[in-house]
Amino acid sequence: MSDCLFCRIIAGEVPARRVYEDDSTVAFLDISPWSTGHSLVVPKRHVASLLEDAGILAEVAPQVGSVARLLVDRLGADGANVLVNAGPVSGQEVMHMHVHVIPRYADRPGIQNLRGHGDDDLDAVQARVVGD
Amino acid sequence: MSDCLFCRIIAGEVPARRVYEDDSTVAFLDISPWSTGHSLVVPKRHVASLLEDAGILAEVAPQVGSVARLLVDRLGADGANVLVNAGPVSGQEVMHMHVHVIPRYADRPGIQNLRGHGDDDLDAVQARVVGD
Repeated sequence: MSDCLFCRIIAGEVPARRVYEDDSTVAFLDISPWSTGHSLVVPKRHVASLLEDAGILAEVAPQVGSVARLLVDRLGADGANVLVNAGPVSGQEVMHMHVHVIPRYADRPGIQNLRGHGDDDLDAVQARVVGD
Repeated sequence: MSDCLFCRIIAGEVPARRVYEDDSTVAFLDISPWSTGHSLVVPKRHVASLLEDAGILAEVAPQVGSVARLLVDRLGADGANVLVNAGPVSGQEVMHMHVHVIPRYADRPGIQNLRGHGDDDLDAVQARVVGD
């Protein structure tokens, strides 16, 4: 069993609220969201960080764009931030490269004040994104 | 003449401190850096935002990885943040899609406190990145 949390999610050993998946990539809701719909887009291939393999961003970039569009459309957001933290000093907490997609809403505070502003019912958010 | 600041930089009508350029992409130092070496990676093709054309991130993603690696190596950084603001509500100020690459240093504050911490001599920073 892998020691990597995201590899375990990818393998189905740890549950996650998926909002998108294809052969190379999975996206799921962040369990400590900065905003409603805050998701992580994760390559299935294990790469510790963008600085370890500079090509890894290109492998997930199309999906990042699609997931941003999906979240904004389904959740009625007004924009989004896309964020990659590369290396622990940058705030990267799980050493499996991942891209934060953080929907933004006109009536919510700036990103520096967002922490704690996404404490929604995550199952309900997932249902809004993926539909039935 | 374009009304778009970044199109004017790409055309050479407005100066910028370039750190990377190829046929499709240019990268230059942000004039209001959050950290030493804070750069913008910009597709030469004008697209207003990631939400207008979800595929645009994939067009610059290889260069984003390369520029992050370049900045970290040349400036002795310890990590980096990669950030795309999509839409004015997210903090996007120039409506030509661009990717912030923000080198991070172990002895500097968290990203939420970074504004104003990159007030270096930008010509000197450029020289360190691009060499001679």
